[in-house]
Amino acid sequence: MPPFRRPADIIRGVLLLSRTIHFNAAHRLWNPARDAEWNHATFGLAASETGYGHNYALELSVRGEPDPETGMIVNLTDLDRLLREEVDRPLDHRHLNREVPEFALEVPTAENLASWIWRKVEARLGREGWPCTLASLVLTVTPSFSVELAAPPSATSRAGMD
Amino acid sequence: MPPFRRPADIIRGVLLLSRTIHFNAAHRLWNPARDAEWNHATFGLAASETGYGHNYALELSVRGEPDPETGMIVNLTDLDRLLREEVDRPLDHRHLNREVPEFALEVPTAENLASWIWRKVEARLGREGWPCTLASLVLTVTPSFSVELAAPPSATSRAGMD
Amino acid sequence: MPPFRRPADIIRGVLLLSRTIHFNAAHRLWNPARDAEWNHATFGLAASETGYGHNYALELSVRGEPDPETGMIVNLTDLDRLLREEVDRPLDHRHLNREVPEFALEVPTAENLASWIWRKVEARLGREGWPCTLASLVLTVTPSFSVELAAPPSATSRAGMD
Amino acid sequence: MPPFRRPADIIRGVLLLSRTIHFNAAHRLWNPARDAEWNHATFGLAASETGYGHNYALELSVRGEPDPETGMIVNLTDLDRLLREEVDRPLDHRHLNREVPEFALEVPTAENLASWIWRKVEARLGREGWPCTLASLVLTVTPSFSVELAAPPSATSRAGMD
Amino acid sequence: MPPFRRPADIIRGVLLLSRTIHFNAAHRLWNPARDAEWNHATFGLAASETGYGHNYALELSVRGEPDPETGMIVNLTDLDRLLREEVDRPLDHRHLNREVPEFALEVPTAENLASWIWRKVEARLGREGWPCTLASLVLTVTPSFSVELAAPPSATSRAGMD
Amino acid sequence: MPPFRRPADIIRGVLLLSRTIHFNAAHRLWNPARDAEWNHATFGLAASETGYGHNYALELSVRGEPDPETGMIVNLTDLDRLLREEVDRPLDHRHLNREVPEFALEVPTAENLASWIWRKVEARLGREGWPCTLASLVLTVTPSFSVELAAPPSATSRAGMD
Repeated sequence: MPPFRRPADIIRGVLLLSRTIHFNAAHRLWNPARDAEWNHATFGLAASETGYGHNYALELSVRGEPDPETGMIVNLTDLDRLLREEVDRPLDHRHLNREVPEFALEVPTAENLASWIWRKVEARLGREGWPCTLASLVLTVTPSFSVELAAPPSATSRAGMD
Repeated sequence: MPPFRRPADIIRGVLLLSRTIHFNAAHRLWNPARDAEWNHATFGLAASETGYGHNYALELSVRGEPDPETGMIVNLTDLDRLLREEVDRPLDHRHLNREVPEFALEVPTAENLASWIWRKVEARLGREGWPCTLASLVLTVTPSFSVELAAPPSATSRAGMD
Repeated sequence: MPPFRRPADIIRGVLLLSRTIHFNAAHRLWNPARDAEWNHATFGLAASETGYGHNYALELSVRGEPDPETGMIVNLTDLDRLLREEVDRPLDHRHLNREVPEFALEVPTAENLASWIWRKVEARLGREGWPCTLASLVLTVTPSFSVELAAPPSATSRAGMD
Repeated sequence: MPPFRRPADIIRGVLLLSRTIHFNAAHRLWNPARDAEWNHATFGLAASETGYGHNYALELSVRGEPDPETGMIVNLTDLDRLLREEVDRPLDHRHLNREVPEFALEVPTAENLASWIWRKVEARLGREGWPCTLASLVLTVTPSFSVELAAPPSATSRAGMD
Repeated sequence: MPPFRRPADIIRGVLLLSRTIHFNAAHRLWNPARDAEWNHATFGLAASETGYGHNYALELSVRGEPDPETGMIVNLTDLDRLLREEVDRPLDHRHLNREVPEFALEVPTAENLASWIWRKVEARLGREGWPCTLASLVLTVTPSFSVELAAPPSATSRAGMD
Repeated sequence: MPPFRRPADIIRGVLLLSRTIHFNAAHRLWNPARDAEWNHATFGLAASETGYGHNYALELSVRGEPDPETGMIVNLTDLDRLLREEVDRPLDHRHLNREVPEFALEVPTAENLASWIWRKVEARLGREGWPCTLASLVLTVTPSFSVELAAPPSATSRAGMD
């Protein structure tokens, strides 16, 4: 087997692989611990009792080194299965407040939904034991609004590349 | 006042002005006249009782001639007010089945929602009396799914341009 | 069962449902009936012997009326199966000149590929017998280049809607 | 030379080839034949004396049949040269009112600019004598505003395909 | 009130909220401290005396923690007002060199315009006293050209999240 | 000459300039050091002997300070020439495995192709001696798949801006 040069040997950079998926969900911005007046003043139309919805786009990035034999950080077939099971199945075609237990009390804002996804994906990546770590996720809610959650520098350095 | 050349005098073509707006709504695909088994078999996950949601993008096109003095088919300020009142206000941040009366019985598919918007906008354009007609609308539901509703050739010829 | 109003009873317009799929293929622009000089002069870099490739995006539009019970022209589940079998399976991850028999002799330009897809999809729609017709397809080859193939007015009028 | 089947022999449809280009220009909406009050009331901020600007995207579509030997309606190399000379050179990096003679008097709205481009491109296509006709152009001014100019049915039928 | 779990307690990551706005402006690349020859050699067509224009897209990202009661870093209603007053009002529909004082001498390149926006937004965020800091802004000038300005690691650590 | 304020004197941030180019190439995922069974199990359809293709979009970002006289990190005319010579010429319209020597043995995955581009561009930037460094590149392979390669913090700090 020829000695493949690992790019990391040469450029010593940070390599990320990103996958984007789409899911559709309804939600309502409402904090059940506060009264109606507070909720309507805080969330406006988004406090609507029946809820409304979004096409969410999720771009998830993992960090790692390409495997010297496959040239891949992770096989997309595997990553797609993880995203289908951890993100698409519990969230797609759901009403977040009513069908996702954590959002019975927590307000399903983009910020909190991003955190929810991070916890699920990071835990599953840990169980899989793949040689990559969760680096960031961008959750796009409308064409002009998104949130991003990124691993802090200390966490990403666990990937051992810098 | 100098004699502006009307483009229609020269090219005799069809001129459309298109405006795109976005609104977010929840819905559920469910025909209340049929039983649960039929609905689940027909609509799959979209038959979910609590509903789910979408960012809808609507591109609406009107047909007309540019006014010789303004060079415009219609002033966007006026068209935006029409779209805000006829489309955004009744649909944005709504649960279509529960908050839009026509969709208590009619299934809020993209096809039926496009027709609903067409009827509202066409009626309002008629009341405004602007020198343009509704030519088409494209309702984009997801990045890979849209419906388009277009005036038939006989209807558009009322614009008197061919 | 309540008497659903068919949108077509009211607006008498043209209703299209559009689905977009993506496939990746290699090809080479080369007419085997002409010599190398002609091919290089005509196709430039695209005449490369080994071929190069594209992410093709195909937006396919069918025309019909929404079914009064489902509110749909066609169920996306069915249309997706058709597109997977007629377009994705024979074209995705292929070298068009070498793996698609028609392109052994015919140059796989965007124009000819669009026609190939049209013939396959139209024939399959005929076998399915769904109450819709193929209205148009847009094949996007690069962000700045696409071809569109549309049914002529006489053909689309077979849908019986004008 | 093998007898290539012309797609038009089989599907008898309408085939369009579309090319998108971008150009950047400044303009001011102002009708010099009317007074300042009228202009400010009609055009609002767009009446600004110094002008403001846009990235214009132009998608131009020609209609024709693929040549049986090349499989192309028109060679993109040729079409690109035409667009560079007829559209990019006179409009890109220009102030439309001050540097394009026709817009000294005519208001450079999207509608009028689309007509200007149509006249230039159609005249040049006529001089080139290529076997294709100008079918439509879409001029996108902002992500939510565009105009489209299309040949009337009678004009396009000159392409002899229906 | 139930004890909401703060995502930051668990994931200790960097959370950003991003908002995109669009504005249209004219400009001219010209350094008044240098002669015409230098300016034309340096800026080419962009040195045009009358100027030309762009649709600028600005994606602005703030960093913070979601408020435990609202689940939001900042209310979009508030952020939109800030962007309207600090960015849209002074820049939209303007000729940058002639109507924005700082660009009478400084060349309004994308780099310098990004810095101008940063200074205005950062100062206003300071006056508002919201619990978030300016993390980055991306100013997209054409589909293939953008600049990004990001807070240095030491500055962002003031957000106190790592 | 008036004393231009350098933005870096005030905000002390990280400034990046990004340029996006597109190129089309064919490739095949195949490790010649492993047998056919391993390759087909690992790469699936992508192991196809003839190869398939992609439209690759490359966004390349350089980091630096704007020159006080030009207001630019780098002149786009110069950067475009570099990208044309280092990326477009060797990769566009190519079959990566067969026409790019490094990919005779190395699998042309997105990860490895990103590293190849990094090495070429970084070396050329070094030879040019421009006052900017390569900060990151994003190689987008399909609408839902991309890889990013970024300079490590220690490397980027060589730009001397923090």
